[in-house]
Amino acid sequence: MTSEAEVGLLAPGWADSPAAAATSDAAYLRALLDAEIALTRAQAALGLAPEGAAAAVAAVGGLDAGDIAVRARAGGNPVIPLVADLTTAVGAEYGPYVHRGATSQDILDTAMMLVAVRTLDLVRADLGRTEAALARLAADHRDTAMPGRTLTQHAVPTTFGLKAAGWRSLVVDARDRVTSVRNSLPAQLGGAAGTLAAFTAYGAQDPTALVAAYARELGLREPDLPWHTLRTPIADLAGCLAFAAGALGKIATDVLTLARTEIAELAEGSGGGSSAMPHKANPVRSTLVAAAARRAPQLAATLYGSLAAEDERPAGAWHAEWEPLRDLLRLVGGAARDAAELTEGLRVNADAMRAHLDLTHGLIVSERLSADLAPVLGRARAKALLTELAQRTYAEGRSLAELLAEQPELEKAVDLDPAHYTGAATTLTDRALERR
Amino acid sequence: MTSEAEVGLLAPGWADSPAAAATSDAAYLRALLDAEIALTRAQAALGLAPEGAAAAVAAVGGLDAGDIAVRARAGGNPVIPLVADLTTAVGAEYGPYVHRGATSQDILDTAMMLVAVRTLDLVRADLGRTEAALARLAADHRDTAMPGRTLTQHAVPTTFGLKAAGWRSLVVDARDRVTSVRNSLPAQLGGAAGTLAAFTAYGAQDPTALVAAYARELGLREPDLPWHTLRTPIADLAGCLAFAAGALGKIATDVLTLARTEIAELAEGSGGGSSAMPHKANPVRSTLVAAAARRAPQLAATLYGSLAAEDERPAGAWHAEWEPLRDLLRLVGGAARDAAELTEGLRVNADAMRAHLDLTHGLIVSERLSADLAPVLGRARAKALLTELAQRTYAEGRSLAELLAEQPELEKAVDLDPAHYTGAATTLTDRALERR
Amino acid sequence: MTSEAEVGLLAPGWADSPAAAATSDAAYLRALLDAEIALTRAQAALGLAPEGAAAAVAAVGGLDAGDIAVRARAGGNPVIPLVADLTTAVGAEYGPYVHRGATSQDILDTAMMLVAVRTLDLVRADLGRTEAALARLAADHRDTAMPGRTLTQHAVPTTFGLKAAGWRSLVVDARDRVTSVRNSLPAQLGGAAGTLAAFTAYGAQDPTALVAAYARELGLREPDLPWHTLRTPIADLAGCLAFAAGALGKIATDVLTLARTEIAELAEGSGGGSSAMPHKANPVRSTLVAAAARRAPQLAATLYGSLAAEDERPAGAWHAEWEPLRDLLRLVGGAARDAAELTEGLRVNADAMRAHLDLTHGLIVSERLSADLAPVLGRARAKALLTELAQRTYAEGRSLAELLAEQPELEKAVDLDPAHYTGAATTLTDRALERR
Amino acid sequence: MTSEAEVGLLAPGWADSPAAAATSDAAYLRALLDAEIALTRAQAALGLAPEGAAAAVAAVGGLDAGDIAVRARAGGNPVIPLVADLTTAVGAEYGPYVHRGATSQDILDTAMMLVAVRTLDLVRADLGRTEAALARLAADHRDTAMPGRTLTQHAVPTTFGLKAAGWRSLVVDARDRVTSVRNSLPAQLGGAAGTLAAFTAYGAQDPTALVAAYARELGLREPDLPWHTLRTPIADLAGCLAFAAGALGKIATDVLTLARTEIAELAEGSGGGSSAMPHKANPVRSTLVAAAARRAPQLAATLYGSLAAEDERPAGAWHAEWEPLRDLLRLVGGAARDAAELTEGLRVNADAMRAHLDLTHGLIVSERLSADLAPVLGRARAKALLTELAQRTYAEGRSLAELLAEQPELEKAVDLDPAHYTGAATTLTDRALERR
Repeated sequence: MTSEAEVGLLAPGWADSPAAAATSDAAYLRALLDAEIALTRAQAALGLAPEGAAAAVAAVGGLDAGDIAVRARAGGNPVIPLVADLTTAVGAEYGPYVHRGATSQDILDTAMMLVAVRTLDLVRADLGRTEAALARLAADHRDTAMPGRTLTQHAVPTTFGLKAAGWRSLVVDARDRVTSVRNSLPAQLGGAAGTLAAFTAYGAQDPTALVAAYARELGLREPDLPWHTLRTPIADLAGCLAFAAGALGKIATDVLTLARTEIAELAEGSGGGSSAMPHKANPVRSTLVAAAARRAPQLAATLYGSLAAEDERPAGAWHAEWEPLRDLLRLVGGAARDAAELTEGLRVNADAMRAHLDLTHGLIVSERLSADLAPVLGRARAKALLTELAQRTYAEGRSLAELLAEQPELEKAVDLDPAHYTGAATTLTDRALERR
Repeated sequence: MTSEAEVGLLAPGWADSPAAAATSDAAYLRALLDAEIALTRAQAALGLAPEGAAAAVAAVGGLDAGDIAVRARAGGNPVIPLVADLTTAVGAEYGPYVHRGATSQDILDTAMMLVAVRTLDLVRADLGRTEAALARLAADHRDTAMPGRTLTQHAVPTTFGLKAAGWRSLVVDARDRVTSVRNSLPAQLGGAAGTLAAFTAYGAQDPTALVAAYARELGLREPDLPWHTLRTPIADLAGCLAFAAGALGKIATDVLTLARTEIAELAEGSGGGSSAMPHKANPVRSTLVAAAARRAPQLAATLYGSLAAEDERPAGAWHAEWEPLRDLLRLVGGAARDAAELTEGLRVNADAMRAHLDLTHGLIVSERLSADLAPVLGRARAKALLTELAQRTYAEGRSLAELLAEQPELEKAVDLDPAHYTGAATTLTDRALERR
Repeated sequence: MTSEAEVGLLAPGWADSPAAAATSDAAYLRALLDAEIALTRAQAALGLAPEGAAAAVAAVGGLDAGDIAVRARAGGNPVIPLVADLTTAVGAEYGPYVHRGATSQDILDTAMMLVAVRTLDLVRADLGRTEAALARLAADHRDTAMPGRTLTQHAVPTTFGLKAAGWRSLVVDARDRVTSVRNSLPAQLGGAAGTLAAFTAYGAQDPTALVAAYARELGLREPDLPWHTLRTPIADLAGCLAFAAGALGKIATDVLTLARTEIAELAEGSGGGSSAMPHKANPVRSTLVAAAARRAPQLAATLYGSLAAEDERPAGAWHAEWEPLRDLLRLVGGAARDAAELTEGLRVNADAMRAHLDLTHGLIVSERLSADLAPVLGRARAKALLTELAQRTYAEGRSLAELLAEQPELEKAVDLDPAHYTGAATTLTDRALERR
Repeated sequence: MTSEAEVGLLAPGWADSPAAAATSDAAYLRALLDAEIALTRAQAALGLAPEGAAAAVAAVGGLDAGDIAVRARAGGNPVIPLVADLTTAVGAEYGPYVHRGATSQDILDTAMMLVAVRTLDLVRADLGRTEAALARLAADHRDTAMPGRTLTQHAVPTTFGLKAAGWRSLVVDARDRVTSVRNSLPAQLGGAAGTLAAFTAYGAQDPTALVAAYARELGLREPDLPWHTLRTPIADLAGCLAFAAGALGKIATDVLTLARTEIAELAEGSGGGSSAMPHKANPVRSTLVAAAARRAPQLAATLYGSLAAEDERPAGAWHAEWEPLRDLLRLVGGAARDAAELTEGLRVNADAMRAHLDLTHGLIVSERLSADLAPVLGRARAKALLTELAQRTYAEGRSLAELLAEQPELEKAVDLDPAHYTGAATTLTDRALERR
């Protein structure tokens, strides 16, 4: 069993991550073995197999994932050659108890659930780190005013605290969805057509007790029904992983925008360099997260598409799930690692944020001005004046405040400081941070 | 406001359905108005607008969706011309209170949530009908044995009761997910950049109280934060709708298979006819559900992709959600209607199911035979004998039972009745039907 | 036949466009009729139907798309009720010749091809306008230097001419692919299972001659084989439309970036306004094109997925094509219109581009400096010096030129003008514009 | 450089295939090296680098893909550490000429094109085998009548020859599209922002000549423009690969249907077995092809989505292409291998096909009967009679021929042999096979 089944040369987003290890071919082989061991143990516990059989299966080593992969071609799945190898390895005495009564899909589905649980735990940890980093950023920048941007243009001021709190709320949503799905993932055991008939043939009085014992061994949920073609768990995984990728993708998208040379309100802690261009500090973590977010929805779509699986076990819909589910798990696992690093190291340039509030010559608070002037001047006159001044600020390169001061019809000063026009941003930030 | 905004010539799957009406352009226009009315009412309730303003907005009629659609081109969304029309319609006195402090996205997002809630309620009702029909089918056919099919081939027997119970469990999963999402959908109110600043400018002491009042008016959840670019509600809708489409798609796929001329174990209550071929009874309801299931995953993918929305309001990611969300809602709405009709009218040919159990000359119970013969003959001899007999059944066209009876080494009869080899099918069916 | 079948309230991207009209329910009904008329005409031309039959079908008016849509539910497609209406309308004498020998899919597929040809001609015209506008921009700004940006950061200088020429090359690629597919689209005629058998039964000596005559009537290509489940034309449409959407999406993405408040190197001719924020000029055309580009790939995926259509005519795969193909056609049609308006009206701020070349204090030409200094100072010393100076430019806020001038080891001046470091940009621009 | 970078435990569809080897991490590393070698050679040919430099780069061995993958994390792509390793390996004299003037994307894009060309050549060979096998099947079964099936029901007869000819036409379409794209794939060389500026800085008089020499070295097309964000080649690959997957998927879908236990008109040459169920011969090759066809459209969608890539080199859109393109290449490569094996070994049961023509008691030719009886009995009477007889065939279990013979109003016999009602099937088959 080689430990470097997946090198990841094309995958800086997940290479060398805990999720990569948790989803490697080696990890899948491990999980397949865990499922076979649990099955034999559960049978032994119910008196359907000798104690020694479980120990014998558990003791098997030296399996060759590459060789199994090649031999999987004949029957279309890796469990068939794996079972052959296991049967040989445990010898004549225990051979009959290997995989007894099960179908390939029982083992492969169970292995996928084990891999999913193990990877989701890594994802949850990195979402936790990300959430904590964002909570700190939101608290630290509770009052840091910056331009609110809509359709790429400055609209009205906001705060970086509110932005970070919003990012965090998405991460918490992702964490909650991932946790909920993780805790719902069932073991799979149904036999050839999901009736558990073979277990009965081999002597089980109540084969559903075997399913319960098997699930208990594995730390997975006991299913209500064999779910060979009732793919709720796969769809739930698709949904929570596509959501997590998108939630992190939102953060990455914003960082990529705010790290632009012209904006530079944010920078990654350690940008990726370029040998020929020493000034470049590329937002690499954001880039890789953004790339994951571009891919996840379509991978999830393939998994949702496999819900329409015919018969008791399908010819293609099931096989189409294997790689996309693994891809989603490691993409999101890698993205969560990158998001944690990104948010923990994020550098915030509050001065740049403040300076950019003046880029529109004060027009960023024109909304407020409309509201303030209407009662004084009447609504029509207020609007006309504002439109006129807006044009003049750009034409004359002067600030709205300056032009406004020259207006004889206005007696008392209007507060044009953009940092004073952040509405309920801090209230919203505080409230959002209360959520755990 | 024309009531036939969407004719549905290319959409027999949703044309003339309640969901089609609930998602028409007219329905969206109604929801946009409902949002504007609720906003004015909430402001009036908090003393931020005169009582008359809300009544005036609520009294507006005669809006032209087509005209608004055309004028929406200039600013890129329909709320801008709608507000212009409303402002004109209510007259000079109340005009200033129309849409006051809000941004277009507040109204359009809220309208999308209203349309979603209204359509999901229709979906839930039809999922309920489907679930009930499947419960009856499962109970009625609790003991109806039929071939279990895997990778298109007869594997071991199962029951139609278990199959129907499995379908039902998917429908219940869909109903639960749809219900959960439906009850979580929030109103949207944030103002230009999600800070609620304009409401403050117009006099609100605590603008979050306005959000609460607005959500209450609408019967939607009060959001923690404005979610202009925190698109959890959209992603949740994508997930539950893609799941529902796939769950119904599984049923359709099975019916399409089992309704094939050569199989004919199932038939739709009233198949679609063909003028030139009077014998044809096409499984039309299944066909249309299957078509919806093919489309939903990719529509959901587009919605998941829009999670990565930049800034405080994005230039494109938001706009890309509108039509796919509507498409998903009405596709699933139509599919749920068709699934209800399909399952309520489904005709089950238990005789055909029974007859097909003999198509493999008895080999459908070879798994059982392996288990039974091994202790008697030894495992190796049992396997060799079975392989030999399997070949002979096909070669000689004789049944396994016949050939087995000629074997001198077997003293006592083995039960080869496929209807007796359904394992825990009835137990599983009973257990699954207990779930509500 | 109502002309406002599709109002487009949620679709500012295609509402009121020529493509919207060309893909409306009314347009599809028109195309269905055109197919039926052509079929009767072709039969008349071959002596298989009386001349009067074709004229009678052509004279039918007053069909109700909405009513047909509702009745399409029973058999799952709109051709069945349409044929019933036509048969009634032409009366007893000619009724038998309506749709004679054809299957619903013959007519609907042919109608889809007619709609596609008509819409693609509109798309080609708007791609042509866009291409011409971009050629002008490229020529006008052949020498306009601007920052080249990679991974969001300034890298080395480029020219706006090269950027516009690159956009144009994508548009020309799109035009070529759309044209090639448009000219390849075939008529559909196969009868119930694609054997043309019914035409033989009704007297055709050589039914392939009928197919040829039918295709000629329609101005579509004569197919080699009936293609009910050989969906090359649909896949080709998916590919060229997804490509066109993406090509225009690239332009929109760049404009959205370069129109940001902080960058402002580009602006749309007439941005969308905001009543409350008079300074906002939203890049609306780019926004709508970007939204189309986000949706097209997944719509194309659904169409590619329908290639796997079973049997002679499929139960679902075909039905799943209708709406996505229409959606793609009108999305791309709308996007092409918007792209033409966008590029024809695009305002280029060459001064801002020039000014931004200095944002990195001259480091934007550090690549050149590396190359120039290495032979003078040795490679290691050159690199060390450059790294040191890069840090000092930011730390001291001074330009690279200034710091470099203080270096005693450099005797002759190095050209640090970014506008002089645009490499082969003009050569490439000129060469690209030669392509027609 | 390990040769087993991708084990393929979850991928029986491509494991151990030539395409797997051609797309492994090792193959990508090889292609990256080929690109670097070609760049140095081209520079040497133009006098921009010493001859020895090219030889030195070409002589480098022992690179470690896994190590490079890990170090790729810092800058976000594998070329950066690869160049570092190469520079070290060639020593101080030639180090400066390694990668000189190029950007990472030049090398990685070029490597992707090399891998694509190499894999597409394998795909074309297997499409060629498949096409040849289908041509033989079509010719051999030119006159083998079988039921034509529409919406899962028997419609009218067709021939297996026509079906195989139709499959072949899709394969030929795929081959033509793959070949056309393969021959269009360009080398990539643009430098940091696509202006070729660094090559000028290093002394190239005409850097486009360097691009030409580089492309020539690689056997790739010379690009008109650097295409860092003009992704036509990637989109073209997406399109032709999604098409090829779908074309093969159509064949697989049909084989899966026709291999069902109840139908058994087709069988794979060597089905996959099941240890517990000796009668099972699973259609494994079709299953794996069908699985590939389910995944390809969404992978293509991700690639089409990356067309909208911002700036001169994008932060995410590019990175999101790498794995999906590889996945598509090897999925289609594996599917083409499986399709070749499938079609070369396909077993056709012409007797079963003939027998199934009688399953509808003769109603499969009711269309013909309508046509034949109308002139004799009048249209209304013919239709009424046919409807009555159709009901009686099923009710009485008698054949249409038998019932028809009892009709006094019919004097002369009607030909009810389904094998005589195949229309133009043979003509169409012959014509389709003429295409090369």
